[in-house]
Amino acid sequence: MTDRIKYLLDEKDIPTTWYNLAADLPGLQPLLHPGTGAPITVDDLTPIMPATVAEQELSREREIEIPEPVRQIYAQWRPAPLFRARRLERALDTPARIYYKYEGGSPAGSHKPNTAIAQAFYNREAGIRKLATETGAGQWGSSLSLAGALFNLQVQVYMVKVSFHQKPYRRLLMETYGARCVASPSTETEAGRKILADDPDCPGSLGIATSEALEVAMNDPETNYAGGSVLNHVLLHQSVIGQEALAQFKLADDYPDVVIGCAGGGSNLGGLTFPFIGERLRGGPSVRVVAAEPAACPTLTRGKLAYDFGDTAGLTPLLQMHTLGHTFVPPSFHAGGLRYHGMAPLVSAALEADLLEAVAVEQTKCFAAGIQFARTEGIVPAPESTHAISVAIAEALRCKEEGRSEAILFGLSGHGHFDLSAYEAHLTGALRDEAYSQAGLDAALAALPTVPAPADA
Amino acid sequence: MTDRIKYLLDEKDIPTTWYNLAADLPGLQPLLHPGTGAPITVDDLTPIMPATVAEQELSREREIEIPEPVRQIYAQWRPAPLFRARRLERALDTPARIYYKYEGGSPAGSHKPNTAIAQAFYNREAGIRKLATETGAGQWGSSLSLAGALFNLQVQVYMVKVSFHQKPYRRLLMETYGARCVASPSTETEAGRKILADDPDCPGSLGIATSEALEVAMNDPETNYAGGSVLNHVLLHQSVIGQEALAQFKLADDYPDVVIGCAGGGSNLGGLTFPFIGERLRGGPSVRVVAAEPAACPTLTRGKLAYDFGDTAGLTPLLQMHTLGHTFVPPSFHAGGLRYHGMAPLVSAALEADLLEAVAVEQTKCFAAGIQFARTEGIVPAPESTHAISVAIAEALRCKEEGRSEAILFGLSGHGHFDLSAYEAHLTGALRDEAYSQAGLDAALAALPTVPAPADA
Repeated sequence: MTDRIKYLLDEKDIPTTWYNLAADLPGLQPLLHPGTGAPITVDDLTPIMPATVAEQELSREREIEIPEPVRQIYAQWRPAPLFRARRLERALDTPARIYYKYEGGSPAGSHKPNTAIAQAFYNREAGIRKLATETGAGQWGSSLSLAGALFNLQVQVYMVKVSFHQKPYRRLLMETYGARCVASPSTETEAGRKILADDPDCPGSLGIATSEALEVAMNDPETNYAGGSVLNHVLLHQSVIGQEALAQFKLADDYPDVVIGCAGGGSNLGGLTFPFIGERLRGGPSVRVVAAEPAACPTLTRGKLAYDFGDTAGLTPLLQMHTLGHTFVPPSFHAGGLRYHGMAPLVSAALEADLLEAVAVEQTKCFAAGIQFARTEGIVPAPESTHAISVAIAEALRCKEEGRSEAILFGLSGHGHFDLSAYEAHLTGALRDEAYSQAGLDAALAALPTVPAPADA
Repeated sequence: MTDRIKYLLDEKDIPTTWYNLAADLPGLQPLLHPGTGAPITVDDLTPIMPATVAEQELSREREIEIPEPVRQIYAQWRPAPLFRARRLERALDTPARIYYKYEGGSPAGSHKPNTAIAQAFYNREAGIRKLATETGAGQWGSSLSLAGALFNLQVQVYMVKVSFHQKPYRRLLMETYGARCVASPSTETEAGRKILADDPDCPGSLGIATSEALEVAMNDPETNYAGGSVLNHVLLHQSVIGQEALAQFKLADDYPDVVIGCAGGGSNLGGLTFPFIGERLRGGPSVRVVAAEPAACPTLTRGKLAYDFGDTAGLTPLLQMHTLGHTFVPPSFHAGGLRYHGMAPLVSAALEADLLEAVAVEQTKCFAAGIQFARTEGIVPAPESTHAISVAIAEALRCKEEGRSEAILFGLSGHGHFDLSAYEAHLTGALRDEAYSQAGLDAALAALPTVPAPADA
C-alpha cells in the first residue's frame, strides 16, 4: 500500500518506564500542606494513596519503571495507533501532514485507563480493598471501574449529578464493570449533606464530587482515593501516549512541528506532549505545543497562577496551578471532562516556562470540527477531543494559507459513542456557546486560599 | 513480555483477495427468480446493485480481488487484533486456550463496515448517488452511513421501529455520519403504508424494513440497495476476518480446535469461519465450527431448509436457506442483529454438509457470559457477540471437565457501548428469556412460497 495511514508498534515496544517531566522542567513548585504551608511529604499522602503512588507524586526522577502486570494489561490496546489523517488532509486541501494518536481503542474508550490500571495495581499491592473517586462526564469513572474489575477492587464513584442524569450509559458502563455509582452531591458524606442542606437542587460539580470521594477515603482505612487528572503521578502514567508517538514518528520518518491536546485537568495534554517537551528540553527538536481548552472554562487563558485547592471543600493539598478558583462553577457545556477549575501543576509550570501555548475554543466550533472529522476519518470523537481537532484544523488551514507543509499531531483522547446527544444538539441547531459569569469568576478568584507561612523549626 | 495477549499483523498483511466459500462448498443452490423459478442472472440484480456486486453474488471463483481503495480504508482498523483471553482462562481455571478475533475496533464498532465499505466503493464507481437499506439494532445502518460519508453517497436507512425508539444513540450515530434514518414501517413506501393501514401500531421487523428499502431502490434509478448480511457477496466481503485469523494463528504457532461465531443472517459467522472451513475442504486441519444462535429465533436449530424470501413483502429472489418463514415474527429480545427469519444460503449449505454445528442459547445465559467477559477481558461485548462468548465458555468448561487443552476461537463481532440498557436489565434482574410462539412458527412455515417450475426453453 502506498499511502500508509497508521503506524503501529509491537506489544514489546510498550514503554518500560514512564517519563516524568518534573525531572527536566524548571519552576515546578511543591504541593503545600494547607494547615502549615510546609511542602507535602509521602506520609501526608499515605492516608489516601499507597506509598508507591505518593512517592511518584513527589518524585523528580526522570524515568519510573512500569510494573510488568500493568504492561500486560496495557498490551490489550497499547501501543495505541498513530494515524495519518489523509482523508481529512484531502478534505481541507492542505499541504500539512496531519497525524493523530488515538486513545479511544481502550476498553473504556479513552486515555483514562492508562493511569486507572496503574493506580489499581499499586492499591491492590498495598492491600487496599476499595477505591473512591469522582467523575464528571464519566470517562474517568468508567476507566477506574474497569481497573477495579481487573484487580478485584470495589470502586465507588461520585458522579456529578447533572451528568449522572444526562449520561445514563456512562453510569451503566461503570455498573457493568461492577462499580457503584452515586449522584453527587449525595447524602453519603458530610461534604455532600452540607451542600444539599444549602441547596437541595444543587447540580453538582467536579470539585464537590472530589470532596465526597476524598472524605470517604480519609475516613476508611481500607479505602483509598484515586484521581483521574491534575496530579503529577496521573500525568506521569499518561506519558506512555507521547513516548509511543515519538517512536511512531521515527517509523514515519517525520517529526511534528506542532503537538495539540485538549486540556481539562491536563492529563491527556501532558501525556501526549510532555515526552516531546522533554526531548526539546534535553536538546532535541523544537516543537510548538498547544493546549486546547473550552472558552467556557478557560483555565490557562483566563485563570491566575496561584496556590489553590483541587476540590470545593478544601480537603486537598495546595497546588500551584492556573486556576479560576476552587469555588468557580463553569456553565453547563458538553465536554464534561473539561469542566474543572484548575490545571495540572506540571502543565501550569510548562505554560509559565513558555514551553506551551493555550487557545480557548467555543463548543459550536468544536462540534463542527468533530462532524467534519467523523465524516472524513470515520471516528466520532469525544466532545473533549473535538477541542484539539478544531485547533488542528485551524493550524492545517494556516499551513494552506502560508503554503507550508508542517507536520501536525493532535491527541484523539477518546471516542464519542456515549456523547451522541451532544451531536444531536449540534445537528438540530440547538447547541449554543455558553459563557461563564465574569462576576462568578471574580468572586472565585477573590476567594483563593492564603498560603500559611511555614512555621520556623 | 512472556504471556503475549494479542497477535497483530501489518497494514500490508490485509488480505488482497476475499475468499469465496462457494468455490469449495458442495450442495450450494442458485438463487431463483420468484416469478419464473429460473436461476437469477446478473441482469436480474442490476436494478438494485452494481454489476460488479451482482457478479460477486453469483460467482464460484475462489478468490476475488479487494480493490486498493477498499484496502486503504480497511487499514484504519484492519488487520483486526486476535486476542488470547488469558484473564478469562484464569477465571474459568480451564486448560483450554481461548482466543477471540475482535471486530469492535472499527469506527462503527462492529464487523459490518467490512462489507459496507466495499459496497459503497462499487456503487460509487458505478455512478450511483444514493443507497437504501434496512437496519435492526443499527450496527449495519451505522456502518453503511459511515461508508456513505467516506464515498460521498447519500444513505437512507429504514430502522425497525421498536429499535428506532429503544436505541436512539444508534440513530444519532447514523445522523452524525450524515445519513437519513426513518422508523419502519414508514409512510414513505407502498410496503410501509400497506402494513400501517392494517396495523398502525406495528413495531416493525427486519423483513418489513428490507421491503421498504428494496422498493425505494427498485423505483429510483439513482438509488441502489445495500444488504448487511445473508447474501453471498456480503459473506464474501466478511472473509477478511477469518483470513487474518488464519495468519494470526500462524504467528501464535497454534490452530483452533473449535471456531465459534454468533449467527443472525450469517455474515459474522461466515466471515470468521469460512476460511477455516475452506482450509479443511482443501485438505487442511479438521476444525469444529459452531454457530451460536438465539433460542428465541432459532433459524438453524428449528428452521426448515427451503426456498424462501429474504423480506416480508416478497421482493427478493428466492434463497435456499434454513428459515422460520419470511412471515415469522420473533419475540422482542436484545440482540436485535440476530432477529432474522432466515440464514445465509452459504451457512445453510455448510450446515447441510456437516461442516458446522448449531447451538441455540437463551439471552439470560448470554448476558451472564457477557458480564463475566467484561469483568475479566475489559471489553463490554455487543448482545449479539455474547452468544458466541456463552458457547466459548461452555466449551472451555468442557475442556476443564475432560482435562483437554483445546484451542477455542470465537468472534467478538462488536462492542456493546450502544446496548448498555440491556445490561442494565440483566443487572437489575429484569431480563427474561423470551419464547417464540409455536403457532406463529407453524403458520410461517406453512406460508413458505412455492417455487415455480422453470418453463421449458
